[in-house]
Amino acid sequence: MKPLTSRQVILASRPIGAPQASDFSINEKLLNAPEAGEILLRTIYLSLDPYMRGRMNAVTSYAPYVQTGEVMVGGTVSVVEASNSPDFTIGDFVVGYTGWQTHALHDGTDLRKLDPGQAPISTALGVLGMPGLTAYAGLLDIGQPKAGDTVVVSAATGAVGSVVGQIARISGCRVIGIAGAQEKCRYAVDELGYHACVSHHSSDLKSQLAEACPDGVDVYFENVGGSVFDAVFDHLNVAARMTVCGMISHYNETARSDEPDRLPRVMRAILTRRLKIQGIIVFDYSHREPDFLADVGRWIRNGELRYREDIVDGIDNAVSAFQGLFTGKNFGKLLIRVSDDPTLG
Amino acid sequence: MKPLTSRQVILASRPIGAPQASDFSINEKLLNAPEAGEILLRTIYLSLDPYMRGRMNAVTSYAPYVQTGEVMVGGTVSVVEASNSPDFTIGDFVVGYTGWQTHALHDGTDLRKLDPGQAPISTALGVLGMPGLTAYAGLLDIGQPKAGDTVVVSAATGAVGSVVGQIARISGCRVIGIAGAQEKCRYAVDELGYHACVSHHSSDLKSQLAEACPDGVDVYFENVGGSVFDAVFDHLNVAARMTVCGMISHYNETARSDEPDRLPRVMRAILTRRLKIQGIIVFDYSHREPDFLADVGRWIRNGELRYREDIVDGIDNAVSAFQGLFTGKNFGKLLIRVSDDPTLG
Repeated sequence: MKPLTSRQVILASRPIGAPQASDFSINEKLLNAPEAGEILLRTIYLSLDPYMRGRMNAVTSYAPYVQTGEVMVGGTVSVVEASNSPDFTIGDFVVGYTGWQTHALHDGTDLRKLDPGQAPISTALGVLGMPGLTAYAGLLDIGQPKAGDTVVVSAATGAVGSVVGQIARISGCRVIGIAGAQEKCRYAVDELGYHACVSHHSSDLKSQLAEACPDGVDVYFENVGGSVFDAVFDHLNVAARMTVCGMISHYNETARSDEPDRLPRVMRAILTRRLKIQGIIVFDYSHREPDFLADVGRWIRNGELRYREDIVDGIDNAVSAFQGLFTGKNFGKLLIRVSDDPTLG
Repeated sequence: MKPLTSRQVILASRPIGAPQASDFSINEKLLNAPEAGEILLRTIYLSLDPYMRGRMNAVTSYAPYVQTGEVMVGGTVSVVEASNSPDFTIGDFVVGYTGWQTHALHDGTDLRKLDPGQAPISTALGVLGMPGLTAYAGLLDIGQPKAGDTVVVSAATGAVGSVVGQIARISGCRVIGIAGAQEKCRYAVDELGYHACVSHHSSDLKSQLAEACPDGVDVYFENVGGSVFDAVFDHLNVAARMTVCGMISHYNETARSDEPDRLPRVMRAILTRRLKIQGIIVFDYSHREPDFLADVGRWIRNGELRYREDIVDGIDNAVSAFQGLFTGKNFGKLLIRVSDDPTLG
């Protein structure tokens, strides 16, 4: 048997501001054969997500950060290539967190088997995976939209936002997206069924939002922060709900901005307009996974809910693809195809 | 019949920063006799509350602001002195919003009759009134404390805070107060049953809070804002709830502070720690009034819940007493005794 190796992307140094190629290195790691209870996984898809930027900082957050010299963390869909475990068979497809690498030895814990007959296996990292569940619970459990409400979604065509917007539309809401490129705005309306979508590149985002939301905003699903937050915030109605899911515009910030302190104004608005602002981390909603998979699975089969993937080939391109997340380069759920997907013809 | 007059406190000009005596004037208004359907009310107690500062600004908020030249708004307990209405009898006690004045002609709408045999009539402006209901709903409905939770209350001995702290204690929580004067901190612990109370005058508020809250903070009831908010915020646990009830430290602010923008850091904490921050205005909770009156009434009779009133005599002293609210001069619910309370021996 030839020696097993895994090609890995290693966090070499902690990025300051936007991640640079030089913050990473490629490592070829020799792997032993699976020991008793272990399996060998070949990565097919690696998910690239904004949260990963936070894991590159030496800041304790809701999950441990990545040590320099370690493989970058990340969700993956893999196939079992060798098994020394009674629970797995060669050819099984699994979703888990094996990181930015081509192969991994694994003890089988926290893996979920995938049935490629049910849905394309890549969707376990997107619309039927972590981003989809985030959207589902963040909108329904925190945002609590009622039919007729106006729902605004930033990063409207992203992995999370695209699901939020469509579930809001299915829930009978008026749904307004905020995206960057005009192409994404058109897609949001034409394909995802947003009632309108405005670009955060436009100089009058706030007045465009006012026009698109004549009755104000009842639910804001926040993925972006910064000036997008500012533009939406003043339109929030009394008793509006804001789900704080992401703040991608801040993730690469290194220094405090020169802006004046906005907190007192925001807090006063929370008080006088009785806003509810709540953060979501998907880990807290595993109890919602059965409902989520049933509902979103049905909506996909019905054609009520669509998804789009932006697939980049090769683990060596993971860093440059990840960099593009922060400039809106991707269009749909960003995935690295690390190796061939045998379920595709 | 001698002419009826009402001595009124008029908003003469809009305060810039802390309200000055010169922002107000005293007016003697001649009143007609009650017309059909009207009653004449003599004010016994006028409630002075921090929210009134907001009404002095020409800023549309959750309620209309006071026009210059108008009587200042305010909650009152009054007695009916003359009635031309079938619904009221001379001698009836009522709670309503008749403002900073000694007498008022009234059409009877939005008045609630008080039974002086049930509780001192002054409590309808405090522990059994608007501040009490604010505390009850803001803690129980928004804060949702569970037995064993750590609850922090700023303005811990104030009209709202004192009720919050005691309901939290009755709910089985560990309750930590923040107050100003040492005398208030002692009162919070000795009389109100807080487990500890720290002074916001101390230079190491944050470390004192850490010591008082070894398991972090699960519920923060915010009445103050500013540096008190900063001191508490970093101690909030994952899934903590923050009720935004007031921000008295900001109400007299005229200019933006020089502090850097704290909003991104706060939003990131909301996200990573899954905080829920929600504002409360008591108007939204009238449906909770029956439960509130039953529960708090029972706790007062049981001796489980105590209250303290800070009573200043004379409508002409309303302005100076109101000014004291912002420097912590009052100790307990601040009331003006506008005229004799006939229910007292």
